[in-house]
Amino acid sequence: MNNENRYFIKELASTLATHEVLSSLYHQDVHSTPMPSVEKLKLIVSKLRAVLFPGYFGLASMRSGSVEFYIGSLVDELYELLSIQIQRGFCFICNERNEQCRVCDDKSADICREFLQKLPAIRHLLATDAMAGYEGDPASFSVGEIIFSYPSIKALTNYRIAHELIKLDVPLIPRIISELAHSETGIDIHPGAVIGESCFIDHGTGVVIGETCRIGKNVRIYQGVTLGAKSFPLDENGNPIKGIDRHPKVGNDVIIYAGATILGTVMIGDAAEIGGNVWITRDVPAGSKVRAQSFEK
Amino acid sequence: MNNENRYFIKELASTLATHEVLSSLYHQDVHSTPMPSVEKLKLIVSKLRAVLFPGYFGLASMRSGSVEFYIGSLVDELYELLSIQIQRGFCFICNERNEQCRVCDDKSADICREFLQKLPAIRHLLATDAMAGYEGDPASFSVGEIIFSYPSIKALTNYRIAHELIKLDVPLIPRIISELAHSETGIDIHPGAVIGESCFIDHGTGVVIGETCRIGKNVRIYQGVTLGAKSFPLDENGNPIKGIDRHPKVGNDVIIYAGATILGTVMIGDAAEIGGNVWITRDVPAGSKVRAQSFEK
Amino acid sequence: MNNENRYFIKELASTLATHEVLSSLYHQDVHSTPMPSVEKLKLIVSKLRAVLFPGYFGLASMRSGSVEFYIGSLVDELYELLSIQIQRGFCFICNERNEQCRVCDDKSADICREFLQKLPAIRHLLATDAMAGYEGDPASFSVGEIIFSYPSIKALTNYRIAHELIKLDVPLIPRIISELAHSETGIDIHPGAVIGESCFIDHGTGVVIGETCRIGKNVRIYQGVTLGAKSFPLDENGNPIKGIDRHPKVGNDVIIYAGATILGTVMIGDAAEIGGNVWITRDVPAGSKVRAQSFEK
Amino acid sequence: MNNENRYFIKELASTLATHEVLSSLYHQDVHSTPMPSVEKLKLIVSKLRAVLFPGYFGLASMRSGSVEFYIGSLVDELYELLSIQIQRGFCFICNERNEQCRVCDDKSADICREFLQKLPAIRHLLATDAMAGYEGDPASFSVGEIIFSYPSIKALTNYRIAHELIKLDVPLIPRIISELAHSETGIDIHPGAVIGESCFIDHGTGVVIGETCRIGKNVRIYQGVTLGAKSFPLDENGNPIKGIDRHPKVGNDVIIYAGATILGTVMIGDAAEIGGNVWITRDVPAGSKVRAQSFEK
Amino acid sequence: MNNENRYFIKELASTLATHEVLSSLYHQDVHSTPMPSVEKLKLIVSKLRAVLFPGYFGLASMRSGSVEFYIGSLVDELYELLSIQIQRGFCFICNERNEQCRVCDDKSADICREFLQKLPAIRHLLATDAMAGYEGDPASFSVGEIIFSYPSIKALTNYRIAHELIKLDVPLIPRIISELAHSETGIDIHPGAVIGESCFIDHGTGVVIGETCRIGKNVRIYQGVTLGAKSFPLDENGNPIKGIDRHPKVGNDVIIYAGATILGTVMIGDAAEIGGNVWITRDVPAGSKVRAQSFEK
Amino acid sequence: MNNENRYFIKELASTLATHEVLSSLYHQDVHSTPMPSVEKLKLIVSKLRAVLFPGYFGLASMRSGSVEFYIGSLVDELYELLSIQIQRGFCFICNERNEQCRVCDDKSADICREFLQKLPAIRHLLATDAMAGYEGDPASFSVGEIIFSYPSIKALTNYRIAHELIKLDVPLIPRIISELAHSETGIDIHPGAVIGESCFIDHGTGVVIGETCRIGKNVRIYQGVTLGAKSFPLDENGNPIKGIDRHPKVGNDVIIYAGATILGTVMIGDAAEIGGNVWITRDVPAGSKVRAQSFEK
Repeated sequence: MNNENRYFIKELASTLATHEVLSSLYHQDVHSTPMPSVEKLKLIVSKLRAVLFPGYFGLASMRSGSVEFYIGSLVDELYELLSIQIQRGFCFICNERNEQCRVCDDKSADICREFLQKLPAIRHLLATDAMAGYEGDPASFSVGEIIFSYPSIKALTNYRIAHELIKLDVPLIPRIISELAHSETGIDIHPGAVIGESCFIDHGTGVVIGETCRIGKNVRIYQGVTLGAKSFPLDENGNPIKGIDRHPKVGNDVIIYAGATILGTVMIGDAAEIGGNVWITRDVPAGSKVRAQSFEK
Repeated sequence: MNNENRYFIKELASTLATHEVLSSLYHQDVHSTPMPSVEKLKLIVSKLRAVLFPGYFGLASMRSGSVEFYIGSLVDELYELLSIQIQRGFCFICNERNEQCRVCDDKSADICREFLQKLPAIRHLLATDAMAGYEGDPASFSVGEIIFSYPSIKALTNYRIAHELIKLDVPLIPRIISELAHSETGIDIHPGAVIGESCFIDHGTGVVIGETCRIGKNVRIYQGVTLGAKSFPLDENGNPIKGIDRHPKVGNDVIIYAGATILGTVMIGDAAEIGGNVWITRDVPAGSKVRAQSFEK
Repeated sequence: MNNENRYFIKELASTLATHEVLSSLYHQDVHSTPMPSVEKLKLIVSKLRAVLFPGYFGLASMRSGSVEFYIGSLVDELYELLSIQIQRGFCFICNERNEQCRVCDDKSADICREFLQKLPAIRHLLATDAMAGYEGDPASFSVGEIIFSYPSIKALTNYRIAHELIKLDVPLIPRIISELAHSETGIDIHPGAVIGESCFIDHGTGVVIGETCRIGKNVRIYQGVTLGAKSFPLDENGNPIKGIDRHPKVGNDVIIYAGATILGTVMIGDAAEIGGNVWITRDVPAGSKVRAQSFEK
Repeated sequence: MNNENRYFIKELASTLATHEVLSSLYHQDVHSTPMPSVEKLKLIVSKLRAVLFPGYFGLASMRSGSVEFYIGSLVDELYELLSIQIQRGFCFICNERNEQCRVCDDKSADICREFLQKLPAIRHLLATDAMAGYEGDPASFSVGEIIFSYPSIKALTNYRIAHELIKLDVPLIPRIISELAHSETGIDIHPGAVIGESCFIDHGTGVVIGETCRIGKNVRIYQGVTLGAKSFPLDENGNPIKGIDRHPKVGNDVIIYAGATILGTVMIGDAAEIGGNVWITRDVPAGSKVRAQSFEK
Repeated sequence: MNNENRYFIKELASTLATHEVLSSLYHQDVHSTPMPSVEKLKLIVSKLRAVLFPGYFGLASMRSGSVEFYIGSLVDELYELLSIQIQRGFCFICNERNEQCRVCDDKSADICREFLQKLPAIRHLLATDAMAGYEGDPASFSVGEIIFSYPSIKALTNYRIAHELIKLDVPLIPRIISELAHSETGIDIHPGAVIGESCFIDHGTGVVIGETCRIGKNVRIYQGVTLGAKSFPLDENGNPIKGIDRHPKVGNDVIIYAGATILGTVMIGDAAEIGGNVWITRDVPAGSKVRAQSFEK
Repeated sequence: MNNENRYFIKELASTLATHEVLSSLYHQDVHSTPMPSVEKLKLIVSKLRAVLFPGYFGLASMRSGSVEFYIGSLVDELYELLSIQIQRGFCFICNERNEQCRVCDDKSADICREFLQKLPAIRHLLATDAMAGYEGDPASFSVGEIIFSYPSIKALTNYRIAHELIKLDVPLIPRIISELAHSETGIDIHPGAVIGESCFIDHGTGVVIGETCRIGKNVRIYQGVTLGAKSFPLDENGNPIKGIDRHPKVGNDVIIYAGATILGTVMIGDAAEIGGNVWITRDVPAGSKVRAQSFEK
């Protein structure tokens, strides 16, 4: 390449680095803390999976009589790795320019410890999810196959982790963890949603479950299902008001078939069955079956 | 971080490693064989792609006069790598605690050899799929572009590999291979489905093709199409009966537009055209066009 | 494994390397140039993201007072890395067997330089997209969160890069860059489409935006929306004619809800609102709201 | 590159693969076991270092209250990793074409277990070596500095590991482990040598300690020292007879300065001091000082 | 492997983790700071080489007109990376249990900045060393070859870096940097030594240059040369006293041939020539030639 | 870290990038060709080892009946990889600013092909070296052990490769290849030296064999041996004249023990035996034994 040609680079770099051009998209953080690391969060999720499903993920040796050593060292590593990411999450949203960062250090470690103590409960919930997958898919041949290879478990694992973190008021990190699953599986569950035990999301691509959804036990959801907002109130500036309840509540034992769209704060009663591609913006009584009319000409 | 705080880890690890908590989610395999390796299966698929599409994938040198050396060494490596994964698949489902594992060794190598001998036929099919993509997408400018960058070919390559493996009764491995493509492309084809030559799946995100589907030659499918089960019979315990025929049969020269849902063991006749977003649960005659009614208010 | 068994490999490799079997799927390029590298293009996109959003991506130090050094060296590296990939794109489609490859060298460097000079404009557009995400999603809490973790920005960043490259007539490379985003986010935007400022694509899985779409400013699109072709005219051989206008034109301030399908060269007027799951093949007047009828039985 | 030119490769490959050319340098192993892995042995040594010197090597967390989890999981991993390498060592020298390989499996695991039970004793010896380094080098400022950065400890760690393995009759593996240290430090200690506690080898480059050396406690050795064979008896074919005692015996509290050469089965008495560059082929009495004459002109 | 066999691991891990066994070799640091990272220090040295010898090491683009961008971003990265390692060096030797670690933060950054400001001077010295290599080795054909491939420059680069750091009282880090070169080249230069400009160390394996050496300008040294201590005074406990002057002073324009050993605080006068393998423990006048007598029988 | 502190970096980078400071150490190449890649040359050497010693290095599968595929593909890759490095070597020393680089392309490929055709002869020589190691070291138990783990074979493999390249007038690359072995083994053989078959260099650290040495068949050399120049004539400017014969000639069946130094263009007659640590600057008759006098006081 002609080196003469390269001298345009100086001018371009100078343009790209001027304050005016930078201002809107330049992250200048307050405490010189690095951004949360997406790679580290991937690693954290993979270590959590090794703790939650011993023998399936992580080292082959974990199947041996020394499983407690592996779990112990994984939990200890997680305590260190995740505390750091939690702290970076707090720094990302922090505006207190005069505050000493050390305040966040202890808070992050405390929150991380609280989170880790939820692992037995998370494992219990995921066990019910795995069983629900086996019972819900005639093509599966064992619970182990569900755990090892179904997108439903991947998405729910990340969701259940992210949900516990959001309950502990950790910023940004839960969102990144659920986006990791969204990217890998096409299933987009907001960490703020509440999902009961024995959930199964078959195939899953295109599923969206919004921030203020509440879903009961033993619910089965197929690909392309949206549990979304119908509309959202605007504030005096015409912007959506943040954090308002705007998503469906789904009872126990409900099945929602592929492509169904359920919008707004509607109630889907226990054991209801929502047909594929239907569009629902009102309450559905318990036990009822909503089917799309045959709309072919 | 305060080391004092760490002592909670001992208690937590102990809780997480107790038999009761472990029992449901702990994979204790019988023959101390490691789990199948998803990373190795990714590697195997990438080497298979280099064999199937020489010059497109793998080493640059493969475009030279020495292509047979590369193919020979790749096939030999694949024989070794894939045999091991097949054996791990068998071990994963094995319950014969007294049997010597060596039985599976020979069986896995034999099956792998049978699979490899299908490669010329798989390549022939994929050549027709690539041509179908070129002919089916006005935005494409060459067959080479389809092979090198379209998700349709990625998904069908994994499917055609996985389908041959499932025909040889290999457990778990075909499922993982098709999930790899599902995660990468959003196209979820069960390895048990039967798909004829010259298939093209445009855009593809959200497509689901179920286990007992049969699809003819020269079929074009768009994003968000489901070929699924309408319902599945339950056994005396209320669980779905495994392995029953429950998916559509699609004839030759059929086009299925975006978002269409076809459920149950229905027949879609040759050269039928299924409109976008339609919902079909009954047979469609050959040559007919099914369009959604205009349902805007 | 029994070495005797391996001798079948010789025969198989020989079969797989014969000219007849190879012919359809063997890429024999003219100038011995390697294929474009998908891995290098991933790297290029990640370096472009570091230039476009300083402080969010790339090195932690970039938040410091020395941001111009980083931008300068990144731009210089990009000039080298991207020029090579552009040249490989030209070689991929080249048929001039007698031409000296050096012609492409200079052309590729020139094009790359022109592209790099678009970076300030691309950054300006992405700033409006990020703001649109913040204003359009009640669940988001800051513009920074949108930039760092929302699939909308990932998809639009790749699109806006690829779009500038396709305007410079670079072959294949723009397509690969948009496929990278499609695989990661489920959002499939053809690099030829024209999209105005302040675009937001929420959740996004399954969104398809076709080659000849034109989309105005301040448009919001939800998951599963298709802006596609209704049909495409065939040439005398029955193949689709390439490059014809066949996709929707969308005005400013339009909202398109989840699962809507808009096909053909229709006009969606300014400030129109298209309801979820609707199917549109005709013009929609400005300011109107198109909702699906309630089609539950 | 001109593809025409490539056709010489076929002929060359054919020449290089013919049996006659291959015969002398082709490793055709009996049981299709792979060669020992030098990379895995590097990993094994680094994990052993983490067990032997907790807090210095391996994970940062190992400094915490959960050190027993880390040591437990490292030992368990080492049991698996090292057993495999030991088995490959046995296969490398095995000629029993009819034997079932499984015999080696159990034997290798048993030997590995015996080796691991030597780790507390190895750690005790290395603690004395580290202290000897601190006391022997005026330039060092702490025992920790010796452990973390001195070549003496690296070489002695590998030696003490390899020595325990050779006592268990493991073939090849001890040799590779000592060559790893030789390459890294320039210190070449045969794993068969016997070296007492509190050994320190300062600088170390060029030190050679032969197979049948015996070295007492508290010995200090400088760079370029050879403890070698003077000559070795030949068998009837004129080849050296393997395994005969042919190296020096060094007492306790001996110092050997840089470049000294001591050859044959001589005895260096307790507390002797051997000057730099001297050449010794006879016994040296306890407590004596052997200095080179001043041989400058 | 038999899982039953694994239960010995529990007992072994417990033994290896008991306080008594751990005590001597367990690094329990005071401020929970990780150990210095040898891998990061390798990276730091390679980035320093790219700054010191632009165009030889680091990115190919650095040969272009944008060299100041690369140097600027490298220096900025080095400021961050090296400050952290310096701080870890201070923590490694710190015993102040009550002190806040933040004290070290600022101090480390200050020292790092002082060090970086020495880079122009270090580059000047290395330029003279490279020229000395070209003039001193009849087998070399250009200065560039010396810079790119001679161990002399590698060893002197690490030494000159480490020497500036030790002058700034940085603990441990200089030692690790010189050990990196020792391992790679076999040349062991203590960072405390003082070496003038235009130094050339040919071949170099086995060279040792002690802590309190002072070497003039334009000195050439061959492999196996030791500039060491003759003896070191003991304190009342019989341990060597740390930090006392005990190594040779070498004048300008001196040549020291292979294998020579010079011990103690002797003076080697300007332009002296020390023959191979000689042993020197007294002053050598300027301009004299010291040769070994012919000592062959 | 305080961002304020970072502003010194701008000034420092500016100083380090000024022309005057750069001039002596800045590699500004003529044809914008990158420097030779040390990493690629490592890879090339490892692939050459896999071709030269099939079954010992490279893929496990190479032990199978398909060895010709592996050798064929390795040779083809080597043709590509090594041609590029050879060309970069030519560019490194090129001063013809007006010449088209394409001249070097063809020349480099031609030279690479000539080199590859020497591989059978190189393999033959290395087979004799391996046998010499087995016969020369009583501690070795098989030829395979020598090939797989002795530094002698590593150093001689790199030397025999580099020697063929230097005979083809390839600049710089042979030097780098021999430095790789020097760094790994401590054995420094100049690629210009001529070494006959059946060579064995035991332990090897510190061995130096100069550019114009000629060594016969069946020679055994121990650690620390120097075959060097006694002095070199200066030109009118006082610089050493390049390329003059200045090193020893060693006959067949010679043994040279540890630490011996042989300088100048002396002749060591066939079957001579040179004792450890001796210093030789005159001819040694065939069959004689040169021993150091006992020089202890």
